[in-house]
Amino acid sequence: MKILTKKICLFLIFFLILFLPGVYPQQPNGKYTIVIHGGAGELDPNMPEETKSAYLNSLSAALNIGKKILENGGSSLDAVEQVVRYFEDDSLFNAGKGAVFTSEGKCELDASIMNGKDLSSGAVTGVTIIKNPISLARLVMDKTPHVLFAGRGAEELGKKFGVDIVDPSYFLTSQRREQLKKYMKEKEINKDGNTVGCVAIDQYGNIAASTSTGGLTGKMPGRVGDSPLINAGTYANNNTCGVSATGQGELFIRNTVSFNISALIEYKNMTLDNAANEMIFNRLPEGSGGIIAVDKNYNYTLMFNTSSMLRGAATSDGIMEVKIWK
Amino acid sequence: MKILTKKICLFLIFFLILFLPGVYPQQPNGKYTIVIHGGAGELDPNMPEETKSAYLNSLSAALNIGKKILENGGSSLDAVEQVVRYFEDDSLFNAGKGAVFTSEGKCELDASIMNGKDLSSGAVTGVTIIKNPISLARLVMDKTPHVLFAGRGAEELGKKFGVDIVDPSYFLTSQRREQLKKYMKEKEINKDGNTVGCVAIDQYGNIAASTSTGGLTGKMPGRVGDSPLINAGTYANNNTCGVSATGQGELFIRNTVSFNISALIEYKNMTLDNAANEMIFNRLPEGSGGIIAVDKNYNYTLMFNTSSMLRGAATSDGIMEVKIWK
Repeated sequence: MKILTKKICLFLIFFLILFLPGVYPQQPNGKYTIVIHGGAGELDPNMPEETKSAYLNSLSAALNIGKKILENGGSSLDAVEQVVRYFEDDSLFNAGKGAVFTSEGKCELDASIMNGKDLSSGAVTGVTIIKNPISLARLVMDKTPHVLFAGRGAEELGKKFGVDIVDPSYFLTSQRREQLKKYMKEKEINKDGNTVGCVAIDQYGNIAASTSTGGLTGKMPGRVGDSPLINAGTYANNNTCGVSATGQGELFIRNTVSFNISALIEYKNMTLDNAANEMIFNRLPEGSGGIIAVDKNYNYTLMFNTSSMLRGAATSDGIMEVKIWK
Repeated sequence: MKILTKKICLFLIFFLILFLPGVYPQQPNGKYTIVIHGGAGELDPNMPEETKSAYLNSLSAALNIGKKILENGGSSLDAVEQVVRYFEDDSLFNAGKGAVFTSEGKCELDASIMNGKDLSSGAVTGVTIIKNPISLARLVMDKTPHVLFAGRGAEELGKKFGVDIVDPSYFLTSQRREQLKKYMKEKEINKDGNTVGCVAIDQYGNIAASTSTGGLTGKMPGRVGDSPLINAGTYANNNTCGVSATGQGELFIRNTVSFNISALIEYKNMTLDNAANEMIFNRLPEGSGGIIAVDKNYNYTLMFNTSSMLRGAATSDGIMEVKIWK
């Protein structure tokens, strides 16, 4: 009887040592890094002071939302979703409310999110009635076996999941209507950019990335850029890094920009900075865009080959910065 | 005067040596390699002999279309487009006519094509009235500054370009209707696969790749798999290789399968075979799919972790094979 009890005790101890670390979450390490962007472009440095302040205030507000989540031990996934939701609700940015117009004068919205822990991903493209495309992308990731839904199918899914549905007119702003008119007259693409994105690594070492956009002013209906495409506009992998891109989408698709930065780290042992530099300055033409990224060691980079990128970064080391130009 | 004439002559000779090779096309080298697939899956080896023959005959016919183009010095782009057009018109395959049904009993078609010479790419997703989605993808690549169009926008573009438009009922076949009924009852995904693809390198060393599919039986409307996604389902780069994938699309997106094979060759100096092996057997789970690929040295590989992949290969060295199982 005594031997049996001893055996049971030994078995229990063995079991606890073996399986508990897998069942109970890892201890938080107190560290985090979060980076955000509100689009790479050619913003005029002589813009009115109040516009400048509005951009910087919005960037700070968005960054603080994510920072707070991470400080409190929340997940990077929640942080990158909530930050992008904030941008989508803010009409200053080309995502959600305030998105640019298609050639038909409508908004067609794209968003994607990726979980670096298991490479699970969710994305939507061409939605017109989903208030927060990034949250629908999160639901695609969490609640379906799929990655990407387009158009009406994505919207039906959103209704099924009970996300906030709005009239398509909700997204329209007079500023974007003016931009479309100007584009139709001059056929010159608006260089404001204003796609939004967020990348973060949390206290458990999990990396997540998200991107949301209305695409290009005057775009042909149905055109899909890089933002809703995992590997092109968004990528996250706990073994390497997380990336969110902004710029001329087609170039970012053809050059697999987001995944490529991860591949250069994984296969060529590059640092995050060197990998981002290789993509942004050696492979992409000047003026084509930028990326924000964090790596598994809590480093970050904000890199662009345009004259401006609305951007910000916050870390557990006390860094907290928001910027527009170099 | 004499000296001036001499100088002009020397300048002209210098000019001819320097610039003519860039203006006039490279000489054909007499070599080519072309590979095709009609989907990875779990086809029953005990299928009726006439079904087996029908598959093998179709594969041979498709392969011969591409082979002839390449033999005659045609481009790999033309070869991969025409081969996939043949598959789209053949109701045996899950692409174009004979595509699988969505949960709503419709066909939503996806296709993509990529040019390894300059990484230009074209793709469409969720089209329902375009007879040959691969040819619309080619037009997106050749005639627009964009890469991907979805749904109605893609269809409007097709009408504008004057491609063949058909009634959505054109694609529907009784065999696929039965598969949907079975799926709705048993909720078991049809393992026939039957996505189609083609990769080729022509006599000028240009690589191209193409993929076309109806997706998954009973898929939710709007679901986008890997086939229309450059980097996931299709990739081509003259410096490395070309790839077309078939299988559980979501896994192929999350693992960036097609581009990753190119990245392993470029960054890790792997052979085509080793790179394909790494993706298909080490990174993807058993039963998830396969790829066909050619590299810049005219090597090819046909690799799958399912029990069957309808496939074929032809080379200027006289290889000509079509196969279903290992």
